[in-house]
Amino acid sequence: MLQTGNSVIVLRKVGDIVVEQRPVPIIEDPHYVKIAIKATGICGSDIHYYRSGGIGKYILKAPMVLGHESSGQVVEVGSAVTRVKVGDRVAIEPGVPSRYSDETKEGRYNLCPHMAFAATPPIDGTLVKYYLSPEDFLVKLPEGVSYEEGACVEPLSVGVHSNKLAGVRFGSRVVVFGAGPVGLLTGAVARAFGASDVVFIDVFDNKLDRAKEFGATHTFNSSKFPADKTQELADEVEKLLSGHHADIVFECSGADACIDAGVKITKVGGTMVQIGMGKNYTNFPIAEVSGKEMKLIGCFRYSFGDYRDAVKLVASGKVNVKAMITHRFKFEDAAKAYDFNIAHGGEVVKTIIAGPE
Amino acid sequence: MLQTGNSVIVLRKVGDIVVEQRPVPIIEDPHYVKIAIKATGICGSDIHYYRSGGIGKYILKAPMVLGHESSGQVVEVGSAVTRVKVGDRVAIEPGVPSRYSDETKEGRYNLCPHMAFAATPPIDGTLVKYYLSPEDFLVKLPEGVSYEEGACVEPLSVGVHSNKLAGVRFGSRVVVFGAGPVGLLTGAVARAFGASDVVFIDVFDNKLDRAKEFGATHTFNSSKFPADKTQELADEVEKLLSGHHADIVFECSGADACIDAGVKITKVGGTMVQIGMGKNYTNFPIAEVSGKEMKLIGCFRYSFGDYRDAVKLVASGKVNVKAMITHRFKFEDAAKAYDFNIAHGGEVVKTIIAGPE
Amino acid sequence: MLQTGNSVIVLRKVGDIVVEQRPVPIIEDPHYVKIAIKATGICGSDIHYYRSGGIGKYILKAPMVLGHESSGQVVEVGSAVTRVKVGDRVAIEPGVPSRYSDETKEGRYNLCPHMAFAATPPIDGTLVKYYLSPEDFLVKLPEGVSYEEGACVEPLSVGVHSNKLAGVRFGSRVVVFGAGPVGLLTGAVARAFGASDVVFIDVFDNKLDRAKEFGATHTFNSSKFPADKTQELADEVEKLLSGHHADIVFECSGADACIDAGVKITKVGGTMVQIGMGKNYTNFPIAEVSGKEMKLIGCFRYSFGDYRDAVKLVASGKVNVKAMITHRFKFEDAAKAYDFNIAHGGEVVKTIIAGPE
Amino acid sequence: MLQTGNSVIVLRKVGDIVVEQRPVPIIEDPHYVKIAIKATGICGSDIHYYRSGGIGKYILKAPMVLGHESSGQVVEVGSAVTRVKVGDRVAIEPGVPSRYSDETKEGRYNLCPHMAFAATPPIDGTLVKYYLSPEDFLVKLPEGVSYEEGACVEPLSVGVHSNKLAGVRFGSRVVVFGAGPVGLLTGAVARAFGASDVVFIDVFDNKLDRAKEFGATHTFNSSKFPADKTQELADEVEKLLSGHHADIVFECSGADACIDAGVKITKVGGTMVQIGMGKNYTNFPIAEVSGKEMKLIGCFRYSFGDYRDAVKLVASGKVNVKAMITHRFKFEDAAKAYDFNIAHGGEVVKTIIAGPE
Repeated sequence: MLQTGNSVIVLRKVGDIVVEQRPVPIIEDPHYVKIAIKATGICGSDIHYYRSGGIGKYILKAPMVLGHESSGQVVEVGSAVTRVKVGDRVAIEPGVPSRYSDETKEGRYNLCPHMAFAATPPIDGTLVKYYLSPEDFLVKLPEGVSYEEGACVEPLSVGVHSNKLAGVRFGSRVVVFGAGPVGLLTGAVARAFGASDVVFIDVFDNKLDRAKEFGATHTFNSSKFPADKTQELADEVEKLLSGHHADIVFECSGADACIDAGVKITKVGGTMVQIGMGKNYTNFPIAEVSGKEMKLIGCFRYSFGDYRDAVKLVASGKVNVKAMITHRFKFEDAAKAYDFNIAHGGEVVKTIIAGPE
Repeated sequence: MLQTGNSVIVLRKVGDIVVEQRPVPIIEDPHYVKIAIKATGICGSDIHYYRSGGIGKYILKAPMVLGHESSGQVVEVGSAVTRVKVGDRVAIEPGVPSRYSDETKEGRYNLCPHMAFAATPPIDGTLVKYYLSPEDFLVKLPEGVSYEEGACVEPLSVGVHSNKLAGVRFGSRVVVFGAGPVGLLTGAVARAFGASDVVFIDVFDNKLDRAKEFGATHTFNSSKFPADKTQELADEVEKLLSGHHADIVFECSGADACIDAGVKITKVGGTMVQIGMGKNYTNFPIAEVSGKEMKLIGCFRYSFGDYRDAVKLVASGKVNVKAMITHRFKFEDAAKAYDFNIAHGGEVVKTIIAGPE
Repeated sequence: MLQTGNSVIVLRKVGDIVVEQRPVPIIEDPHYVKIAIKATGICGSDIHYYRSGGIGKYILKAPMVLGHESSGQVVEVGSAVTRVKVGDRVAIEPGVPSRYSDETKEGRYNLCPHMAFAATPPIDGTLVKYYLSPEDFLVKLPEGVSYEEGACVEPLSVGVHSNKLAGVRFGSRVVVFGAGPVGLLTGAVARAFGASDVVFIDVFDNKLDRAKEFGATHTFNSSKFPADKTQELADEVEKLLSGHHADIVFECSGADACIDAGVKITKVGGTMVQIGMGKNYTNFPIAEVSGKEMKLIGCFRYSFGDYRDAVKLVASGKVNVKAMITHRFKFEDAAKAYDFNIAHGGEVVKTIIAGPE
Repeated sequence: MLQTGNSVIVLRKVGDIVVEQRPVPIIEDPHYVKIAIKATGICGSDIHYYRSGGIGKYILKAPMVLGHESSGQVVEVGSAVTRVKVGDRVAIEPGVPSRYSDETKEGRYNLCPHMAFAATPPIDGTLVKYYLSPEDFLVKLPEGVSYEEGACVEPLSVGVHSNKLAGVRFGSRVVVFGAGPVGLLTGAVARAFGASDVVFIDVFDNKLDRAKEFGATHTFNSSKFPADKTQELADEVEKLLSGHHADIVFECSGADACIDAGVKITKVGGTMVQIGMGKNYTNFPIAEVSGKEMKLIGCFRYSFGDYRDAVKLVASGKVNVKAMITHRFKFEDAAKAYDFNIAHGGEVVKTIIAGPE
């Protein structure tokens, strides 16, 4: 019977998304849990696979289920499960590392070379009716946190992770380049972690307007600064910070000029976190990094504790992820959702696909 | 009388070094100490000012006394001095920051914007007969440590500082690009701090040979790898590390290809410290920094505690700075010493100028 | 003329406080600033000197000006001063360390052995008309922050310092023993730094009621737990924390039973900060500290950056220090203020003495 | 046939140790490895169970195989094993935590509440012919490291762990109370990690003599200082450290007077690590901990990376664990070995029981 089957959204090849019926997965590992998916966000990486079939070393070679920003309800638990029970509403961490790797045991499982990450080829994603996850990669959603908000926990966790890497704390002066979903959430977390100043920089005023709901104390449209005027841009931002440079810069755009300006805005001894992925190489002011003894830190996904903190941020009201959700689609309209995202990139922030009925 | 005057080595303008007689400085601040200079090392930066009159924002606009790698003997102490006494033999930290700046009070006085650093325009240097220093920027040389070794404490402190920034510890796998004085000392400190592997990479075999006296567990001549074969270079180094990437890379060459290769050799989650100063901008693999969540840390001079640790390293025999001293000149031959350094760059490692008689 | 003199509140000996007229201090160090004191809080330590003439190794041997929790207005600046100007309203950090000590240069000047701390014998305090301070130990009060609030910055800085030592961050579960001024402010800072749970424990319900204005998520009256029931007390607190132990415990009471219970409430691998000063020795569960690999951290005053953060906390509204001010006295009634504090210890939280007219 | 069975050393009840034959264990988990045990050290905890049947909350309720300090040779590997192969010689980490606990995923698996630790009731130990372990809790012994040295890796890992917790680094001044096996190895690791001074304190001269092979720069017999003369003891140690207090104190004795003296010897802002287990409660100078803002850190076993570092320390020759082995027994004489340890506690440092033939 169809209703007992597993409806899944499959990217068969570039530009080809279909709904398929697959067998419902069976719990074999006693620490695993079966979840009925209720909401899934569309991430830029999904779009990338849909349009071009790959991101860096990850190449789509066979049909793959899409989706990795999901929440759902527990419908079955393995015999050893103690942390969740049937009926619990949960956010699902979509990457499960090896339990045996050094990185996992050091608390940095995002760096585990054996990571199985949903919707990163060849691992199937979460845009399904039923999904299996180990219990310790689920975080319960408190009452008052919706499934849609639960789906937003995934990108919010990137913001949590980057803020921890950077050491944002009470009173930090922060600059965020790029007011897309990751930039918005990173800035919002910075503010929730106590930053006194969060300056958002982007080239679109509509994005900067939205930043005001995500912790912005200042916004700055950098569109009039050409790529060779990064020092001038930095000087303007310094004025917004009352003559200070930034303790911490989050570079969420991946744009060459922003990376360059980001270094210039960072204070002596300060930190820049590179989150945005642009070109593989950039023309980089390395002598300035040395001369002011600053740090550049790479940031990749999220790790132990980040998902929990993200749920706490939503539950406490400190980050309002709902303000990011601009569009909604039904499960069976997933292909349309992707096409819409591509066609209306300028206005979409976060699209949520509902779970199947 | 000449013997009571202060002989000083002055760089009058590009290419023009002379010995001058100036008044002996007088202690005015009760925390200050007068030192008779006994030995001074020649640093690449001195050469730079001699040849081109500037380094970055520091421009020689007026005659300046050269020298900042010095040791000497205390000949007079201010009324409040408690840490040293007349007759003590000391290494002299050549940069004195403001006591009021945030950076100084945070323990990062190397970043103090009001730093007065010897032989950095317009501040006079240490190539003099008598020099004044605050007592807390002197470190006593234990018995058995010579004045020449004391002069080498300055570049050794850069090695100490970079190793602390990087967090080198027992068992670390380290790669050093560039086997010049700073590279040699940085690698030697890494080994003294417990690194199990220190791979030196350079394009000159004679430099790599010397590295064996500075803690090298492996050396590698990279001259056959063109700038577009940085991955291949990294792969070779990985073999030397028994299939591991480096926990920590010290980039002491400033060369574009080394910076690129350095990132590639760094392990996932690892650290690269940029010490070498080359061009202002480099073509930089930023996406790799993000994707493997590594850190790039700038390194500038040295800060609180580094000079003391450097003296301890010499005194304990853990770093043999004497193996670095290749040439010696008399005080009055300072101009010749500089010319010799320029003419024989390939064979000189460290030149020591004796204090005036 | 009297109006140009310096009125000061002097503790001549135990139990003997008088107003005296002294010469107005003169700026000799160009980095110093003269401040007209506008408000001063009474601290428990002042009371201690008044009643018993000493605290630990600090013994009142000669008349001493009282007061160290003060704010005021800049009336004159030394020739080198750049950070403040005449007319600025400032909070005054009352302890000035040696600029030459290791501890100061490491960023831990609270540990400087040469610290000159206001109203700690033999150093005169801040209950004066005019006070001298180096410019870098002043923090400007933003508009909207009153002098009375400025006086409360001193105890608030203890809360800031202890929270930094403990590493309180977003989502921390915190327990505070003792709801006196320091406990209240420490808990309030914990909440401002992101703690999700702050449990205040005291034996007085009126103090616990007040804690609700200082970040309490839970309060607990421990008066019914005798000293041999510390495990039972810990078990009750665990219930308040939904079955969790505390990430961080702040022990602000100094009471033996609270220290013991604090260790028991701390989670495996957690941290307890000892702020309260009680008896010199306590019966301490050392085996439990080892067995659960927890940390006990001593906390002494505050250090670099804490005063600034405290002012930021007040200015941002994250900590409402006004809720702590229960009593006010005129400058000339200072002796009465001390007597009132002693007589009404149970109801007084913080008493402010106004500056002289 | 007997030779294919598993000979095991069982503690049946207090004072009753026998050799039993049990079935050879079978690899069920594909990540597990079967090891033929070659050498096992006797630990004080084994003696404790033998004499009194329990340590703290761990009570012997049923017969238990003894031993947890073992090395051996791989004789069979599970299907997923990649890190070791048949024939490899390995040190065996005797505690395996849950893979799902927070503590494990944070890199602190020693704190995992679900830890299964060999020879801690009710878990069987390693004094067997064949033992099963997950591959990632084995560390290969390099050529030149014997099985006996491999058995000493377990207590050495405690020394590694405590040194990491304390942050010992180049130039640290260290004091060790108690020159038993753990004290010796902790001091030796401190020296290997770069400590410039390691003062061992004990009441037995023969133990202090041995300390000279374990990194001691100074030894001090404290037997003439009664328990109320801890300050005098601290003053004497200060003299040995040329007028300095200790950066780090390792308290490995568990004795009340040593704990008290340890606090007094610790510098302002310094750290004391409590490793020794004595009485549950001690009379503790809590006000001094506060007043000098020092840290007391509990230490429990060892965690991620410690075993590897310990093997590296042995292989590099930086710690000579062989100098600790004073007695050897055959496998079938295990009961005699325990009795000998009890009878000759003063002269035994480490006893090794060979693996069964």
